[in-house]
Amino acid sequence: MNGAEAIVRTLVDSGVDVCFANPGTSEMHFVAALDSVPEMRGVLALFEGVATGAADGYARMKGAPAAVLLHLGPGLGNGLANLHNARRSRVPLVNIVGDHATYHKRYDAQLESDIDSVARTVSGWTRRSFRPEDAGSDAADAVEAASIPPGQIASLILPADASWSSGGVPARPHRLAPAPGVASAVIDDVATRLRDGRPSALLLGGMALRERGLRAAARIAAECRIELLAETFPTRLQRGSGLPAVERLPYLAELAAGRLEGLAHLILVDAKAPVSFFAYPDKPSYLVPDGCEVSVLVSGDQDVPAALEALADAVDAGPDSTRLQSATRPQRPQGSLTAEAIGQALGAVLPEGAIVSDEANTSGVFVSGPTAGAPPHDWLTLTGGAIGQGLPVAVGAAVASPRRPIIALEADGSALYTLQALWTMARENLDVTVVLFNNHRYAILRMELTRVGAASSGEKANQMLDIGSPDIDFAALSRGFGVPASRPSTAEEFTTALEQAIAEPGPHLIEAVVPPLF
Amino acid sequence: MNGAEAIVRTLVDSGVDVCFANPGTSEMHFVAALDSVPEMRGVLALFEGVATGAADGYARMKGAPAAVLLHLGPGLGNGLANLHNARRSRVPLVNIVGDHATYHKRYDAQLESDIDSVARTVSGWTRRSFRPEDAGSDAADAVEAASIPPGQIASLILPADASWSSGGVPARPHRLAPAPGVASAVIDDVATRLRDGRPSALLLGGMALRERGLRAAARIAAECRIELLAETFPTRLQRGSGLPAVERLPYLAELAAGRLEGLAHLILVDAKAPVSFFAYPDKPSYLVPDGCEVSVLVSGDQDVPAALEALADAVDAGPDSTRLQSATRPQRPQGSLTAEAIGQALGAVLPEGAIVSDEANTSGVFVSGPTAGAPPHDWLTLTGGAIGQGLPVAVGAAVASPRRPIIALEADGSALYTLQALWTMARENLDVTVVLFNNHRYAILRMELTRVGAASSGEKANQMLDIGSPDIDFAALSRGFGVPASRPSTAEEFTTALEQAIAEPGPHLIEAVVPPLF
Repeated sequence: MNGAEAIVRTLVDSGVDVCFANPGTSEMHFVAALDSVPEMRGVLALFEGVATGAADGYARMKGAPAAVLLHLGPGLGNGLANLHNARRSRVPLVNIVGDHATYHKRYDAQLESDIDSVARTVSGWTRRSFRPEDAGSDAADAVEAASIPPGQIASLILPADASWSSGGVPARPHRLAPAPGVASAVIDDVATRLRDGRPSALLLGGMALRERGLRAAARIAAECRIELLAETFPTRLQRGSGLPAVERLPYLAELAAGRLEGLAHLILVDAKAPVSFFAYPDKPSYLVPDGCEVSVLVSGDQDVPAALEALADAVDAGPDSTRLQSATRPQRPQGSLTAEAIGQALGAVLPEGAIVSDEANTSGVFVSGPTAGAPPHDWLTLTGGAIGQGLPVAVGAAVASPRRPIIALEADGSALYTLQALWTMARENLDVTVVLFNNHRYAILRMELTRVGAASSGEKANQMLDIGSPDIDFAALSRGFGVPASRPSTAEEFTTALEQAIAEPGPHLIEAVVPPLF
Repeated sequence: MNGAEAIVRTLVDSGVDVCFANPGTSEMHFVAALDSVPEMRGVLALFEGVATGAADGYARMKGAPAAVLLHLGPGLGNGLANLHNARRSRVPLVNIVGDHATYHKRYDAQLESDIDSVARTVSGWTRRSFRPEDAGSDAADAVEAASIPPGQIASLILPADASWSSGGVPARPHRLAPAPGVASAVIDDVATRLRDGRPSALLLGGMALRERGLRAAARIAAECRIELLAETFPTRLQRGSGLPAVERLPYLAELAAGRLEGLAHLILVDAKAPVSFFAYPDKPSYLVPDGCEVSVLVSGDQDVPAALEALADAVDAGPDSTRLQSATRPQRPQGSLTAEAIGQALGAVLPEGAIVSDEANTSGVFVSGPTAGAPPHDWLTLTGGAIGQGLPVAVGAAVASPRRPIIALEADGSALYTLQALWTMARENLDVTVVLFNNHRYAILRMELTRVGAASSGEKANQMLDIGSPDIDFAALSRGFGVPASRPSTAEEFTTALEQAIAEPGPHLIEAVVPPLF
């Protein structure tokens, strides 16, 4: 057994049975090992950013890592933006980067580069597997490292000779320790603060936005008459009718600061104290109002839902919250096709169990409200700010949850970073409906240009934010990658296309040409 | 004047008047500065790898750096593979990476990451511009660092507040020192070796593959009856009728080693001693035969053509070489459309002054021979092995050389890494003809799978190298990005389409479905 086979066998034994891959020559033995370990599913991507983003989406839905297989430093580079996002998602991910054979590195061949330094910038754990004898145990260690709550990227750099040489030994999976609980003194301290009658809020992030945590949080909020807020860009938010409703902090720093104004206590529940997404001249970066006390109830390396349940008990919260979302759907929209009409259409038809990968950016501001009362569903957002995450995350979510409908809400500018994801959707026949908001520009940058005080009437600056000349035909691009596409021209046509796309197996793309907001 | 304006003004004053950009919020003041410094041309890319690859292609043809503008760590990541290639091209390139404001970094906002560590892996010079007062002089230093022969990547990390704050001062450009000459003792030593009558070869790379160096090398070769070889992947090779013919070392290590067999002297002329592109089990990495002496005539930080001319004088070479390429073109091909027919068609119609960006990989093996006797032209290759370079390099070459026809020979698998380059070709109306070899697979990996000894009859391994299911419709993708496309089905139709595409202004794509070689 060679090192590659030992790794693949160990991964499968450790529960990692999907590998999103874009391999090259130095990974050919790993690829060959897919046939000797039939339980491992290889999912091919045409670009590494698709593979890394898919592993993120997979982990969000599966709660366990997928593996990624990348080719040398350039492959890691191509996958880096979505590894950055995955780091911010705080999901488990086993990132395997092939390298030249150990003895070949000193010759500085064309593809030689410093993989380790790049990998460390996104990884919580990085190791080089030097010998086939170690490859299996290194893989087991990687899975363990990736899986430590809340989850992180474990990068295993695999020289070609460690991969191809015999002597590989599969390792037993590590037994993962459960996430530790929060000390009762911390629970009691927060409970005391919440009972003091001053305006307070729980800011929920990470695992607090899953159903169990949300239900406990809603009980606390009802009992203590405090607010529930969610971080701006959740990794996975469970929402919809019958679930506790929670408001996401706005992206715009001014609005977020306004939302926090007047609070005397802000309790962080697997969340960070809010800061501005970008810096702006003469505006604060830290958004918590002066005089507001910030306390940490629980962080992501601890048992988050248990901490919320313990707090609910400590404040003597009743068993049920009154703050559950009622089942309400908007009317089907009529007339012009706008971002607002698309929000209504989604609210009108979103099926139970849907998984929404939301990278609609400016066009997506009207989507959250109308879908709030739809049947229970999951909402996945752009966690790290590096655009080009939405389509790959949809791929990974679909692989993890093959029986659930996936809706990818995708902005035109963002789609173009990782559009190759469409091909993997077609190849794997994934049930993904892509709603492509085409407003012909980097609308968010048009807004930001003004907000950062760089307001320029200059033609050249505006041209740099305009992607409408030439116009991009997303329906043509979609068909080029093998995904059927439509281009409805009214709200009614859009809603019908959306229903059909969701009902039919396999991927579909709906290009919606919408007026820009900025 | 703010820091951004000082940088743009300094760049222009230093001769850097093109900026390939994919900006974000933290770069908005730099974008606005494009309007206050009208001499700077901004070229927008939809993906950072297009911008970095274009700057490489630009520098190859211009002999001077372009600037690149990237958004934070993820933007750098997306541009990293083609920065890796540019590092191997040894071209000058000023890489400007926007960052959060200095005071914002400690808040670890979503897009915060370790830019410096990643930038250093590809850069010969890396600096952070902390204050607007320093921005101008930092930019001048960056241009100087980039331009030191043979050229390297200079990365300037630009915090948003250094960009937007006033106090910027444009800096005077540095005067660049000429490349130093080679000591006469070195010239004489090599001349002595070449006169000893034993089998010898000059291995030419870098600047030795431009016309002046080639002519001197050909004089030496004729006088001393030695061989002329070129490195496998030249940054820019001037070739065609009337120019000295030089044979590129084969990509395959076995063939390269065979080509070197029997040599007693190998003289390196701005080239490295040949090593295998990848390592293979039980095959040598170092390809120079045992007993062959290796001498360095000149390296890239020295005056390469002057060294060759001095050597020609030292060996009393005659003024002209007999080894000039004769003007010969193949017949126009007939019948089936194959990679071989495409090579013939290119040889038959390649216009004088054409610039060929060659990333055809396996399909391209038949292209070099039939085009050797075409009118003088430039050949640009995949210098760093990170596929996805060919189309961006064509963009940059077209911006640098607007009056010359550009031909991009592109393999299907490679094209899909940076296909967004097509949109920039359309937007800038660049005279690029893309010949897209579609063989439905990663053919080079099919070959490498066997060569590395991972031969597997396994279906899963073969699937990971197959990009033909679903079939990718490159003509549709091209039209989606605004580039007219055709899909000829015979050799005759292809040749006609090629002629028309070259004759008509603006970009065109010709999709050639060809049988795979592997």
